Amino acid sequence: MNSKFRTPIIIVNFKAYLEATGKKAVELAKQAEKVSKETGICIGVAPQFADISAVAQTAEILVFSQHIDPIQLGSYTGHVLAETIREAGATGTLINHSERQLKLSDIEAIIKLVRDKNLVSCVCTNNPNVSAAVAALKPDIIAIEPPELVGTGVAVSVSQPEVVTNTVRLVREANPEITVLCGAGISHGEDVAEALKLGAQGVIVASSIVKAKNPYDILHEFAGAAKQRKMN
Amino acid sequence: MNSKFRTPIIIVNFKAYLEATGKKAVELAKQAEKVSKETGICIGVAPQFADISAVAQTAEILVFSQHIDPIQLGSYTGHVLAETIREAGATGTLINHSERQLKLSDIEAIIKLVRDKNLVSCVCTNNPNVSAAVAALKPDIIAIEPPELVGTGVAVSVSQPEVVTNTVRLVREANPEITVLCGAGISHGEDVAEALKLGAQGVIVASSIVKAKNPYDILHEFAGAAKQRKMN
Amino acid sequence: MNSKFRTPIIIVNFKAYLEATGKKAVELAKQAEKVSKETGICIGVAPQFADISAVAQTAEILVFSQHIDPIQLGSYTGHVLAETIREAGATGTLINHSERQLKLSDIEAIIKLVRDKNLVSCVCTNNPNVSAAVAALKPDIIAIEPPELVGTGVAVSVSQPEVVTNTVRLVREANPEITVLCGAGISHGEDVAEALKLGAQGVIVASSIVKAKNPYDILHEFAGAAKQRKMN
Amino acid sequence: MNSKFRTPIIIVNFKAYLEATGKKAVELAKQAEKVSKETGICIGVAPQFADISAVAQTAEILVFSQHIDPIQLGSYTGHVLAETIREAGATGTLINHSERQLKLSDIEAIIKLVRDKNLVSCVCTNNPNVSAAVAALKPDIIAIEPPELVGTGVAVSVSQPEVVTNTVRLVREANPEITVLCGAGISHGEDVAEALKLGAQGVIVASSIVKAKNPYDILHEFAGAAKQRKMN
Repeated sequence: MNSKFRTPIIIVNFKAYLEATGKKAVELAKQAEKVSKETGICIGVAPQFADISAVAQTAEILVFSQHIDPIQLGSYTGHVLAETIREAGATGTLINHSERQLKLSDIEAIIKLVRDKNLVSCVCTNNPNVSAAVAALKPDIIAIEPPELVGTGVAVSVSQPEVVTNTVRLVREANPEITVLCGAGISHGEDVAEALKLGAQGVIVASSIVKAKNPYDILHEFAGAAKQRKMN
Repeated sequence: MNSKFRTPIIIVNFKAYLEATGKKAVELAKQAEKVSKETGICIGVAPQFADISAVAQTAEILVFSQHIDPIQLGSYTGHVLAETIREAGATGTLINHSERQLKLSDIEAIIKLVRDKNLVSCVCTNNPNVSAAVAALKPDIIAIEPPELVGTGVAVSVSQPEVVTNTVRLVREANPEITVLCGAGISHGEDVAEALKLGAQGVIVASSIVKAKNPYDILHEFAGAAKQRKMN
Repeated sequence: MNSKFRTPIIIVNFKAYLEATGKKAVELAKQAEKVSKETGICIGVAPQFADISAVAQTAEILVFSQHIDPIQLGSYTGHVLAETIREAGATGTLINHSERQLKLSDIEAIIKLVRDKNLVSCVCTNNPNVSAAVAALKPDIIAIEPPELVGTGVAVSVSQPEVVTNTVRLVREANPEITVLCGAGISHGEDVAEALKLGAQGVIVASSIVKAKNPYDILHEFAGAAKQRKMN
Repeated sequence: MNSKFRTPIIIVNFKAYLEATGKKAVELAKQAEKVSKETGICIGVAPQFADISAVAQTAEILVFSQHIDPIQLGSYTGHVLAETIREAGATGTLINHSERQLKLSDIEAIIKLVRDKNLVSCVCTNNPNVSAAVAALKPDIIAIEPPELVGTGVAVSVSQPEVVTNTVRLVREANPEITVLCGAGISHGEDVAEALKLGAQGVIVASSIVKAKNPYDILHEFAGAAKQRKMN
């Protein structure tokens, strides 16, 4: 098991939502921390770059950057460095999110870079084949999210279970040490339970938490379902 | 005159230099603030995204983001939003830096977006023709930096004065309200004085300050030269 | 007047339509040539890269590449060179089409490159402001196409006449020698007539011709409307 | 064995070299055909897009596009379609060449697309790890080219043999049906022989042939070395 985090894990992607920007990002991270402490489930958040330090200072929780560039220090105006987000308090980074896709050689370079900095790498993929390709690059986490389900409220674990099971199978075959998450449309505790039943070791979520009237309640429901599943 | 800032102005681009990351970014910004107060010259800094809030909280100084994306709030994982960098304390943004170039239609969209948020827009350009094109989009600032001179220590204002004068002339013809800066290779107070003599209203600098043994000294030299020129 | 082509001009963009690929591209170009000879109206076609030579060999007509890269000869696998498309028989190129947008500095470099090769440059733009910016770069042609109208059948010249008149005005102010075309939704002879009435010197069209049951008929209608307008 | 081509195979990438543009591209392809017939070694050429049809019509030889876009027919001005390059006579395509790199999900989509069209897919990679990732996507060919050796005349097979053997091993483990080529710096018959000895089933070359005083001689030397090796 990866010592940098426990499973099951729930990652909440703050995207560029107004409800998770600036002070609201910090507030949301605090609630995630509260749920994590109450349920014992590992929770990570992925705020925007400019919010990483405030979030990391306030909440004891995994903090992921939403993206990182395949570069070392130097003349890279406007880029995101591993070094800088780590100093700001991030413990990991999303890589190749469907809304910020990367060239293959850059994904490989970033995974290496992130490993050197002792950060957690979470590479997002769009289907089982692409997940199998990424598995060869040995990231810590692969998060499969079929793009057509993102933001729909139709959970991948319920409507496309074979996407999850095929990803789990192909990644396991390539490298059993990689943690597999699934995401897209996860809206209810049952969606989380179903994801774990299919072999995923957690979920990546966004709008269902960030845009909820009461994010704490929904996240508690998700974490509770994960805990229930873990104990069975 | 643009009421968002005074001229002459010196913008220090922190790029992705280790010497201007995290705590060192805050320290450097404090020294810039000190020079600004001592000389009365307007100084701006452009730290990395994750350092914007810490810099803005500590130093009373113009803070520029190094880049911004042409997007509104929503599903834009890994992107940089005007809203977020403003809430973090930025007062403006670089746009189209030579190390982070943009599509033409995106430059136009970002200038509009930034104007709506009451932030200062500083568009970087590589030659007089491109500067003239950008002038039609009415940003607050155009900063001309011939890419072949960046980081060389050979000052644009000394070695390619016609690049500065042609830019000033073409931008003035198109729109006299736009502030024109020049950059690339600016290393000495005389380079700054020369830039202002050619019609530029300030300079954009990076390695000569960030990588200096004593950044305060060099920046003070630059600001002093600008002040001298202003008083003549 | 630009000696490389006469106005009014109609450019037919073949895009990646099956109806204008390979032999069908050649056939369509022949019909365009026929219309041009019958009406005396200057017509250009923009086939896919691989179809340029066959089209240029068969039809006496202006042939535009759909795109070109800002590069000289050398190690540029998978890129499109001015030299090569010219040798294949192209007489010009589209630049920055909304489906193939470019960085600002690349647009400037390509316009220069194309001028050196004595090819016709036609830069596509999405609004009057962007058109004004491009005018500073002095291409031969600026073609304004509001992206939201492309492929709708709702003609820019009828539904957004101010987009055309503002573009014409801003480009004229910047440089009276640039030819201004408009496009998006042009479906009938009246749309063409309206475009010319608003000051455009021609139109750029695609699906209304390429996907027509009888492209010859529609193109003849367009050219007829242009001729009528020219004679008034 | 892949029925679309025999091994060993030599692919000559014409890049954007003046010596392999237009009529010279056709001439070079003819010489490649001659070498192929004389030696019995399978040779492919990768001309620029606009030269594909002329090359394919003249020489009986494998013709690769240098790139293809991950798109179906439609509104894709300036893009390269599988359909179009196939109709022009191409029998395959390079994908993800180091000078034209692609997003991971696009590589996957293109491999599928190319398979559907019954074209040969040759994905270029920069190191063994990336090759292993690509192997999961099941292209016909993987061509490893360490970017730092491209164009140097220092052959990958001689100076970095472990890059070749590791690639061969990792790709074989993932999928034994994929053909593995290597390239970068291949300049002599011995470089080719060495590549085959290390387990590669062919080479991809460019400047050593295209920029040779007598391309026929060098290509004949390469093919002769491959033949020699095959017979042993």
